[in-house]
Amino acid sequence: MLTASVCTIGDEILIGQIVDTNSSYIAGKLNAIGVKVNHMQSIADDEDEIISSLKLALSKTDIVIVTGGLGPTKDDITKKAIMKMAGTKSLVCNSKQLEVIEGICRKRGIELSDLNKEQAFVPENSTIIVNKSGTAPGMMFEIEGRLLFSLPGVPYEMQFLMDGVIGNILEIRKPETIYHKTIATFGIPESTLAKQIENWEDNLPAGVKLAYLPNPLTGVKLRLSMYDSSVTDKENVANELFNELKPVLGNAIYGKDSDTLEKVISEYLISRGETLSVAESCTGGKISSMLTFNEGASRLFKGGIVAYDNNVKQEILDVPDEIIIRYGAVSEECAAAMAEGIRKKLGTTYAIATSGIAGPGGGSQEKPAGTICIAVAGPGFVKTKRARLSGDRARNIDRFSSEALNFLRICLNFEPSL
Amino acid sequence: MLTASVCTIGDEILIGQIVDTNSSYIAGKLNAIGVKVNHMQSIADDEDEIISSLKLALSKTDIVIVTGGLGPTKDDITKKAIMKMAGTKSLVCNSKQLEVIEGICRKRGIELSDLNKEQAFVPENSTIIVNKSGTAPGMMFEIEGRLLFSLPGVPYEMQFLMDGVIGNILEIRKPETIYHKTIATFGIPESTLAKQIENWEDNLPAGVKLAYLPNPLTGVKLRLSMYDSSVTDKENVANELFNELKPVLGNAIYGKDSDTLEKVISEYLISRGETLSVAESCTGGKISSMLTFNEGASRLFKGGIVAYDNNVKQEILDVPDEIIIRYGAVSEECAAAMAEGIRKKLGTTYAIATSGIAGPGGGSQEKPAGTICIAVAGPGFVKTKRARLSGDRARNIDRFSSEALNFLRICLNFEPSL
Repeated sequence: MLTASVCTIGDEILIGQIVDTNSSYIAGKLNAIGVKVNHMQSIADDEDEIISSLKLALSKTDIVIVTGGLGPTKDDITKKAIMKMAGTKSLVCNSKQLEVIEGICRKRGIELSDLNKEQAFVPENSTIIVNKSGTAPGMMFEIEGRLLFSLPGVPYEMQFLMDGVIGNILEIRKPETIYHKTIATFGIPESTLAKQIENWEDNLPAGVKLAYLPNPLTGVKLRLSMYDSSVTDKENVANELFNELKPVLGNAIYGKDSDTLEKVISEYLISRGETLSVAESCTGGKISSMLTFNEGASRLFKGGIVAYDNNVKQEILDVPDEIIIRYGAVSEECAAAMAEGIRKKLGTTYAIATSGIAGPGGGSQEKPAGTICIAVAGPGFVKTKRARLSGDRARNIDRFSSEALNFLRICLNFEPSL
Repeated sequence: MLTASVCTIGDEILIGQIVDTNSSYIAGKLNAIGVKVNHMQSIADDEDEIISSLKLALSKTDIVIVTGGLGPTKDDITKKAIMKMAGTKSLVCNSKQLEVIEGICRKRGIELSDLNKEQAFVPENSTIIVNKSGTAPGMMFEIEGRLLFSLPGVPYEMQFLMDGVIGNILEIRKPETIYHKTIATFGIPESTLAKQIENWEDNLPAGVKLAYLPNPLTGVKLRLSMYDSSVTDKENVANELFNELKPVLGNAIYGKDSDTLEKVISEYLISRGETLSVAESCTGGKISSMLTFNEGASRLFKGGIVAYDNNVKQEILDVPDEIIIRYGAVSEECAAAMAEGIRKKLGTTYAIATSGIAGPGGGSQEKPAGTICIAVAGPGFVKTKRARLSGDRARNIDRFSSEALNFLRICLNFEPSL
């Protein structure tokens, strides 16, 4: 099996100033074509460090992908380090990349500087992947039978260039396939889930590996992986195994692979020509933001109201004053009135509403931080749910949002496609 | 200087299923107490791999922090691997952690299973950091004068335990200080910025290192780092250097360190007792979500409307029909009417509105995907701006949101505190 390692360069990663999202993106792409990533590392903007880490990576895996340190500024030293390592002396101008750079400067109305122009100069023994989304091209080196790719660290540009990287790997090497299949569950804590499927897990066939992936937004995912080429018809094996789980986990299963709650709900409602609106208090726009993340959201999502202030709940969502006085803004009654209010106002088939306390402040004995009230309104019904979660503010907002989407899913009661 | 390495364990990281956010969090915490992170790596759920990587890490740095593989499920093998490496034979029950586990099960209304109970059993030669936010405790090992910490991989639990890790490091070792200072800019592309400050950068004193940190939500940050203990009074040196940039960069500078546009705007408006509302079309709730992320947002933010459908713009925000017919929903005129509409409806001091095309579909020759119209309404004024960005949908939504917040900041015209 072809193996790879990913190396991200930049002091900003090592001091914790940014999260490295590149490694994950790259690993996902490599995995999809059957290249197994054995190792990821992040290292400093330091020439010696870069050279020794890349040498070690090249000695251990067939493919090494490096990101970062290719920008126009002085702290960007990857190109120089790789040239030193590969014994390259001279740079040549890549006319295609230069054209792109000129175009970008023109569009932004800025002068073509020497710094920008330098980006088109590449080591003579490298193969270039032209970067149409930025100024620094991708570079491929063949070193003692191994492939080394160097890409810019800006995620958007790196992602653009990865298509070229994948094309080159498929052409030069011929990867075998790795098979993964994942099912997504929501509503059962990881340890309870493990207990429920203990028997099934103990009896998994050889060569099939199970992993648990818990996440506040997507629930607990269960992944089966088969690297072993002796397992034939891997897809069938995985499907049969997951089918055995259906009676055990029931409607906790909501989808597969990269499915999210908002994705499966959107696809289901769009297929039925139905629409959705959202009234949010404590989730502050997060649910609307999740629903509009995917293209085509406008077919489903008509709009949302972030009713942070009680006045907004009363005046725009028509929540009766007596509900807020009698039950408080954080109550199932208020959430129900908010859901009915937005559903009527926007004329949608369904509506979700949330009211709760994200914390850390604002809680009381009766309604501590982490309390969430959710309502779903639909044709002829309003259903509500109250839950108490424990987390910090950011985690509570995420979990409130996913609990609300999951409650809508349960109310809709549809069969997931696995 | 005390050095550290961070090692995250989990196949889900290596196949690109999740982004590793733990390393960044841990590095930030270590950095703040003067421990320099030299290396981060992610490795598989594989005993041999774990043992060899940790041995290597311990040979190179004073402190090693490992996350992952401590869950209750069978794919979690870190504890076993570390015991093998440290030559530990037996486990002992930690009564404090057992109490926490019992409490969690009671609260969730689930039975205390053997799987849960096992979590309280820890290697006899380890020092325990009790985990009150989950079932798996943190463990500290002293191995040949080096410190090895093993923490669960769930970010929320790891974050809880890092406070204990930091406490232990401060007590057992005595780290020196590293100094970083960052200023935040918005509106100048990285390469133009580099050109503008070239002279200044060339004349930085020895021992002071500059880094550029571009990000679609926060702009380009500039960080000065001083590791060298020969530079005394580091804070003054950094302040003087950044002061020299003020006349060069003008109002592009909006804050320092971990400042974000929403944070500086919120602090400024709250200090003046002023309020804000938001009407979003293409940004789909992202701006509201950013503004409500920080605690105390309710003092500033009254509410928002996600007017995805044109009907919502007309009926709730009172955008006149003729504006949509004459200029289209994506126009500065429509954005202005949306901002005025929400400001009036919610009675806030200021209002932001966005209308644009996040893409990839929905664009035209005249208004291609990436077009964004922004309006800010305040006492006696409405200002608008139109821009064209190029990115995929997710990036466009992020940049639309930050452009809108930055436009509000420019309209407010306040001095950042650096």
